[in-house]
Amino acid sequence: MATKEFLVKVLIEPKPELLDPQGHAVEIAMHELGLETARETRVGKLVKYKVQAASEEEVRKKAIDISNELLVNPIIEIFSIEVETL
Amino acid sequence: MATKEFLVKVLIEPKPELLDPQGHAVEIAMHELGLETARETRVGKLVKYKVQAASEEEVRKKAIDISNELLVNPIIEIFSIEVETL
Repeated sequence: MATKEFLVKVLIEPKPELLDPQGHAVEIAMHELGLETARETRVGKLVKYKVQAASEEEVRKKAIDISNELLVNPIIEIFSIEVETL
Repeated sequence: MATKEFLVKVLIEPKPELLDPQGHAVEIAMHELGLETARETRVGKLVKYKVQAASEEEVRKKAIDISNELLVNPIIEIFSIEVETL
């Protein structure tokens, strides 16, 4: 079956109900640098990779699986996935 | 002037020409977990915030400024910005 190449971005951040001291520190610095209205600042992780697959649906499903198995700690983190055809 | 609320994501990753040992380790684990075609895996940082502004252009310009001033180390990192109207 013909496969295409995709770019996957997994965006991982602390759960909304948890404190994020690093995000808080960044937000204070942003305010001081003139971005006074910045709020709800969160600092998280980005995992980016290229992959071959038959369809975007397959890429997205595997990205969710790999996030749950390897990349994300579901006790303290949430994630979202962006897929782009190359 | 009326302002709207925007969601900004700053995606930061190691420069392509630099080694990324963490990305390499993640890629090996992905291969072992069945995602055999994953390549060019990079691990980086995500900074996400909400902000008030008059236009998306203004949000994007300020996000680039704050990234260069505060969030990104241009010697070893590159970044991209995603803006969404809320």
